[in-house]
Formats: sequence, structure tokens, C-alpha cells
Amino acid sequence: MLVKALIAYDGTPFYGWQKTRMGPSIQGALEEALHRLTQEKSLPEAASRTDRGVHAEGQVIAFSLQKLWPVAKLQQGLNAHLPVEIRILSIEEVDETFHPTLNAKNKEYHYRVCLGDIQDPMERLYSWHFRYPIDLDVMEKAAAHLIGTRDFSAFANQKADNPVCTLQKITFSSPSSYRLQIGLIGDRFLYKMARTLAGTLLYAGCGKIKVSQLPKFAASKKREMTGVTAPAHGLFLHRVCYE
Amino acid sequence: MLVKALIAYDGTPFYGWQKTRMGPSIQGALEEALHRLTQEKSLPEAASRTDRGVHAEGQVIAFSLQKLWPVAKLQQGLNAHLPVEIRILSIEEVDETFHPTLNAKNKEYHYRVCLGDIQDPMERLYSWHFRYPIDLDVMEKAAAHLIGTRDFSAFANQKADNPVCTLQKITFSSPSSYRLQIGLIGDRFLYKMARTLAGTLLYAGCGKIKVSQLPKFAASKKREMTGVTAPAHGLFLHRVCYE
Repeated sequence: MLVKALIAYDGTPFYGWQKTRMGPSIQGALEEALHRLTQEKSLPEAASRTDRGVHAEGQVIAFSLQKLWPVAKLQQGLNAHLPVEIRILSIEEVDETFHPTLNAKNKEYHYRVCLGDIQDPMERLYSWHFRYPIDLDVMEKAAAHLIGTRDFSAFANQKADNPVCTLQKITFSSPSSYRLQIGLIGDRFLYKMARTLAGTLLYAGCGKIKVSQLPKFAASKKREMTGVTAPAHGLFLHRVCYE
Repeated sequence: MLVKALIAYDGTPFYGWQKTRMGPSIQGALEEALHRLTQEKSLPEAASRTDRGVHAEGQVIAFSLQKLWPVAKLQQGLNAHLPVEIRILSIEEVDETFHPTLNAKNKEYHYRVCLGDIQDPMERLYSWHFRYPIDLDVMEKAAAHLIGTRDFSAFANQKADNPVCTLQKITFSSPSSYRLQIGLIGDRFLYKMARTLAGTLLYAGCGKIKVSQLPKFAASKKREMTGVTAPAHGLFLHRVCYE
């Protein structure tokens, strides 16, 4: 059977999604929990291979099992074997043609920022402390220059075979005076692209980058022209949409 | 000079407010930061000696220094020396008669609960995962039985010299379907009283305690009659009010 699951994780203690010898990974933890529960060897695939320290509220994964399992029992069993930092939120059996990455229509990332001189200690693991005053109107203008379909090489920390992506929407929300959440919706994201977009928007917002120069920077395809790569612990994979 | 400061901390790595040989404490960390910055020995006092694992968004402390310091420099210097889990939010010089505990008019605690079968991993350090379905109307009725001035021995995990407290207000807020925040405002709280009130309200909400029996339990002055002491990591000292 092929199983699709919606999962959430606190990325703090992990070396990212992908299994590595460096240390604990989300993929590795899931493989181990699956093995303990089912005695089968199965390596799950994910919609997004999130980097070290990145969190997920709505990652989508898929894995296959030889034996048939009632999905509710599978969910309960996996949550019992997984570390508390990873939770299976929902689970279902899917058609063998399903692929979490290839079938994804778009993805939504949230980048959380803590503004002001002093960071709320309870937010320190889940937001970037950005001390510079920002102008949200300027960030909205910067965002307007970034959305659309183009070569996003200037926002990728690695050469990509296909650097053309469609960034469909950028949103800003301020749940309180010292918090800002940047929402990024796109069909695909290059390596560290979400974090570089967040960093560029914040650099524009605080005046380190001029908004009028953004189109030129974006078109340059040169990574050194755009803003900083914002740190991993502010980034959340919020949602993956399928047809 | 006598200094009053508003501080926030993530209680996760600490053995509580009070300095102890068991391990790191908030009081101990502040004493050390003060010593490193000023070379003076000064042990701060707090409005509430929060237990091991309890968080604070608005703890009030006071400490004295021989040498005069500009308060802004003191705040900046302390935040530079303190662990990231503790932040000085604001600071001011006060009259020598000020005492953070004795002068406090009332305190507000927030108890955060994560409802449903699966806990959001990002909330696991800052809320109690309570799996039983709860009825908020029943909790409102239970709260009505608890507010007022009385002997709160039935809600204290230790005998108190003066067990008479005034619980002024209990509030409930649900920022989302799986989150609940219980607000508790009172003039003083006995040992583990805030957590036992939260546990009792939740036990009433899920039917483990009958609301009609609450007045009898509360009047019994016996701790074993009331609900569970809710775990420390859901509790936040939210605010301390002075005249």
C-alpha cells in the first residue's frame, strides 16, 4: 500500500529532512519509527526536503508498505514511536501513482520574524530576531517586484537545472506589534530560495536594499546581488497543495 | 540604587526562579550576569518565585547596586550577559521602599492547553497536551465556584501560614480550535495553586470532577479532593500589577 501523511515537526534538533550520517533527520526518524512498528524497511519521500533547523506545520510525505495496515492504527503507532518533535497529523491510503514532490501544485512557506530590540524568549526557536526598524509599505512594494514567473537564480544558494519558478503570492501579517509573518506561495522553491526571499524583503524593509534596484538584482541571476539568507529557525513549511 | 525590571523567560532549562544547587535557576543566572557586568554581589528578588519549568512573560524583579548606573546601559549589559532564555524587557530606578512581592497588588497567570489527539510539536514546550474533550460552558460554571476570597488550602500542595487568597477573575480564550488559554487573576497564589486551579478546571471541563461538587471540594481544604496539578510547562506568569 502507498500511504500519504500530513506531518508537523519542530526542526530544532534535526539535521534537516534528508537522512544523513551527520545526525538525526526527520526522514531517518520516520524510517526508524516505521521499522519499529511494521518491521518493514521503507524510506519516506517528502514534498519538500527542508533544510537543517527548518520547521514544518504541513509537510506531506509518502511511503509504501508491503503489508496492509488500517491507517488509523498506522498513525497512532507511528506517533507512539516517533520523537515528540515529529507528529503525524493525518494519514490516508493513496493511489500508487501519487508522488509528494512531483504532484505538488504549490507550496506555502511562512517566515516568522521577531522585531524590536529584545526577542521574546519563547519565540527564539521559532522566529528570526530582526532588530532593524522596517517599513511594511516598502516591503509590499518589494514583494510586487518579486512575484511572477522568472529565473530565480539570484535567490538560490546553488545552481539549479531549472531555475524558473513561479512565485504566486507574498503576504504579510502582523499578529502583534513585534511580530511579522511573511507568507510565500510558489510552484517550487530553489535551494534556500524561501529564506533568501525573506532576507531580501527584510533588507528592503529596513533600507539596506533599495526597492527600485530590486528588478535589476532579480534579473542579474547573481546571488550576491540580493539580500541575506534569513536563518533556518524562522522558516515553516506551512502547506503543500495538490490538484 | 534600587532597580526594578520587567523580565521574560523560557522556564524549560531552569530549576525555577530560586537559586539552588540542583542546577541553573533564573535568580542565579541574573546574579551571575549582574556580577559579570557590575562586579557587585546582588541577589535579585522576584514578585513570584516560579517553579521549575514555569515560564514568565511579565515577571517583576528588584535588585540593589552600590554604584549608580544609567538604566539603559544596565539593561543592554544584562541582556548581553544573560542566557538567551532570559530577557530584561524594561528597567527603571525605583524608590528604596519598593518590594516586588510585598507591593504587588495582583498577579495574572496564563495556563495554556493544547487540545485534541495530537499536539502541535511547536507548542510542546509551552502548553499542556490535554487529550480529553472539554466543555467550555462547564468550565465557565466551575470557574464561577472558584472566584472569591477563601481559604485555598484545597488547591495548595503545601501548608501555608495564611491560606486565604482572593481569586479575582478567571478567563478563557481560544485562539484556535485546538488551543485554550486559562487566565487566572488573584492577589496571591499558594504553592502550585495556579496549576491546581488549571487542573481542576480542566478536570471539570472533561467530566472527571462534577461542577456541583466543586464548592464542597473547595471548602474541604483538602488537596486530595480537587483536580490534578497541571504540569509546569503550560504555566506563564503573565503580569504583576502594582498600585
